[in-house]
Amino acid sequence: MSQFEEISSALSFGGKQLTLAHGSKATGTTMRLSVFLPPAAKDGRVPVVYYLSGLTCTEENFTVKAGAQRMASELGLIVVAPDTSPRGEGVPDSPDYDLGQGAGFYVDAVQAPWSTHFKMYSYVTQELPGLIEEQFPVRRGAAGIFGHSMGGHGALTIAMRHPDIFKSVSALSPIVAPSAVPWGRKAFTAYLGADEAAWKEHDACYLARERGFPGQILVDQGTADPFLEEQLQTQRFIDTLKENRQSAKVRMQPGYDHSYFFIATFIDDHLRHHARMLNG
Amino acid sequence: MSQFEEISSALSFGGKQLTLAHGSKATGTTMRLSVFLPPAAKDGRVPVVYYLSGLTCTEENFTVKAGAQRMASELGLIVVAPDTSPRGEGVPDSPDYDLGQGAGFYVDAVQAPWSTHFKMYSYVTQELPGLIEEQFPVRRGAAGIFGHSMGGHGALTIAMRHPDIFKSVSALSPIVAPSAVPWGRKAFTAYLGADEAAWKEHDACYLARERGFPGQILVDQGTADPFLEEQLQTQRFIDTLKENRQSAKVRMQPGYDHSYFFIATFIDDHLRHHARMLNG
Repeated sequence: MSQFEEISSALSFGGKQLTLAHGSKATGTTMRLSVFLPPAAKDGRVPVVYYLSGLTCTEENFTVKAGAQRMASELGLIVVAPDTSPRGEGVPDSPDYDLGQGAGFYVDAVQAPWSTHFKMYSYVTQELPGLIEEQFPVRRGAAGIFGHSMGGHGALTIAMRHPDIFKSVSALSPIVAPSAVPWGRKAFTAYLGADEAAWKEHDACYLARERGFPGQILVDQGTADPFLEEQLQTQRFIDTLKENRQSAKVRMQPGYDHSYFFIATFIDDHLRHHARMLNG
Repeated sequence: MSQFEEISSALSFGGKQLTLAHGSKATGTTMRLSVFLPPAAKDGRVPVVYYLSGLTCTEENFTVKAGAQRMASELGLIVVAPDTSPRGEGVPDSPDYDLGQGAGFYVDAVQAPWSTHFKMYSYVTQELPGLIEEQFPVRRGAAGIFGHSMGGHGALTIAMRHPDIFKSVSALSPIVAPSAVPWGRKAFTAYLGADEAAWKEHDACYLARERGFPGQILVDQGTADPFLEEQLQTQRFIDTLKENRQSAKVRMQPGYDHSYFFIATFIDDHLRHHARMLNG
């Protein structure tokens, strides 16, 4: 692994759970990520699924809390979870949890002071898949993407813009209408500027209307999620999908909240969705 | 829940994952614990399994990292994970990770300054089961105990001394010979005093020789565990079990380390072991 420094490695469900670091060209910082290699990756090329985390998370939260390794091992999926932003000294930050480090929003910032390092869109769509395919036994043309909350926004928008790279997509508690909700409006104003025209290509509802996705979209959303009403507004996405006859399964899960307890409960379904699409 | 204050509650695999706090008579402090209630606990009494964590852990590590809820939900087990020591201002501590707060070693300290609050043995064997049976739909006579590392030591020693309370026992990477290894000798000297005669009743190898356990003991231990040689010395337990014809399954798991990635990999087997013993 010439490009990656191995921070840690542990056997997990017969596979290997790695934490890696590398110097990123996109962000100009050291980026961390976790990579799970299923047992099947020893014997041949397998599909890869990218998981994008939510606000405040690093590469670690999903890796230790979601319980994805069991099913990824069984299905033979490589699972890659990058950090949610550039970090470190010299990288701009904000005192707020929803802006700056830990809150990259999967866009390429064009506004100062963010524009130097906050290039998570380029990182996730170009640099990261390139490196992963170079270093691990990924089957060509078999990459999927999913994520949670801010990462659900990242997964949906990136998949709809790059169906050539990501052949399957799903999301848990995603931000679906960032241009219309406080989290999204704050981040987009800071990173992309006040001209809302520049926001559209990072808005899942806009993209579902204008582009759609060639495969079925799977979304799970808890009805007891404290962010549902103000920040997530899943109904906007449901309506848009329906209007545009997008193949999708959006499941409102009664009583579930926004936590990793929710994610862990439905992670198997999401991994199975990706395996089905990528192996089909 | 008159005795417990609810810190948090989340739906998880159709069950309820609670974090609770209460004023403990045994420790004289506020103790935290996590309780998972499977869906079956809505309809009737079910078995309970107590999980004791290792050094430095709180009630949270197991709860968010082990992935126990899926199988506990399926098997219909209540799972209770207490904190590993009293904590807070006024509670003695040590700068070392292996003594003081986070390192109660499941004994009742008799040496100053620990003897005021460090009563984890009484807490786990008496106060906690009493409260849990009072507040939750536990089936009488259907309690098991397991744990990891220091908590594996706690589970094995407590089960062998109280087979009337705990009808099933298992351990992951347990300390099995605390009287003979640095972690145990340090903690027992501080908590129980220099007279090693007082240590015996907290030593799993001694208890396996002198008492044994009426049911089968399940132990999993990773061969790549960095603590295996100096602190765990599983072979001592294997030899003792053999000499005393104790029914046991001790599995050396090739390549696994001491982490929650190891625990998560084998947690289903442990929960199945307890369900089998408690429902049989």
